[in-house]
Amino acid sequence: MVGESFKQTIVLRRDLGMGRGKAAAQAAHASCEAVFRILESGDRRWMEWLEAWRRSGQEKVVLRVDSERELLEVYTKAVELGLPASLVVDAGRTQLPPGTKTAVAVGPAPEELVDKVTGHLKLY
Amino acid sequence: MVGESFKQTIVLRRDLGMGRGKAAAQAAHASCEAVFRILESGDRRWMEWLEAWRRSGQEKVVLRVDSERELLEVYTKAVELGLPASLVVDAGRTQLPPGTKTAVAVGPAPEELVDKVTGHLKLY
Repeated sequence: MVGESFKQTIVLRRDLGMGRGKAAAQAAHASCEAVFRILESGDRRWMEWLEAWRRSGQEKVVLRVDSERELLEVYTKAVELGLPASLVVDAGRTQLPPGTKTAVAVGPAPEELVDKVTGHLKLY
Repeated sequence: MVGESFKQTIVLRRDLGMGRGKAAAQAAHASCEAVFRILESGDRRWMEWLEAWRRSGQEKVVLRVDSERELLEVYTKAVELGLPASLVVDAGRTQLPPGTKTAVAVGPAPEELVDKVTGHLKLY
């Protein structure tokens, strides 16, 4: 893995009009949940990616989509490519209806693989 | 631990004028890093808190401070009380000078302990 870069992208829905604190909490949910998936997967390659990402500063980039459909496309593509990913479904205790899909995290994984999934998205 | 509630608070500096994506990324850094500290601590009580928090929906609340001094007070108090906590120092690759302290996470831990540290703070 010499010379590879690792990152995690966090994709948030802008169309929900979340306040900035709510958005930050959803980003944290997505990010941690993807890490838990790796830890619980027993997947050796994913664990190597996680370790390499931690050592290199845990790059996280927050990106936007504007619909549930786009969010689900990102999640589905990440899973299809074999990348660690998470999908956050809000419990609906505060600003949103229960079951609202708010965020996705892709990676940590090699940058070129993550970019296949989220490389077309704009910064949040 | 029957009947106990568990949460993690994430404290962000509002005085830095971070964009919402930057703020969300810092929140995710703080949150994950606190989880890593627990996993690496070998502390049995912390691990129980982490598991109970995961099972109960991983409550995360994002709060604000308005200075580095306040941020460091929060971190110090959490450590003094024996709570898992993290302090995020920005690498300075984008919006901020290198070394800027941007965020702290406190917990996951029992709600009444977390509130001793961050109960006085407003929502971000």
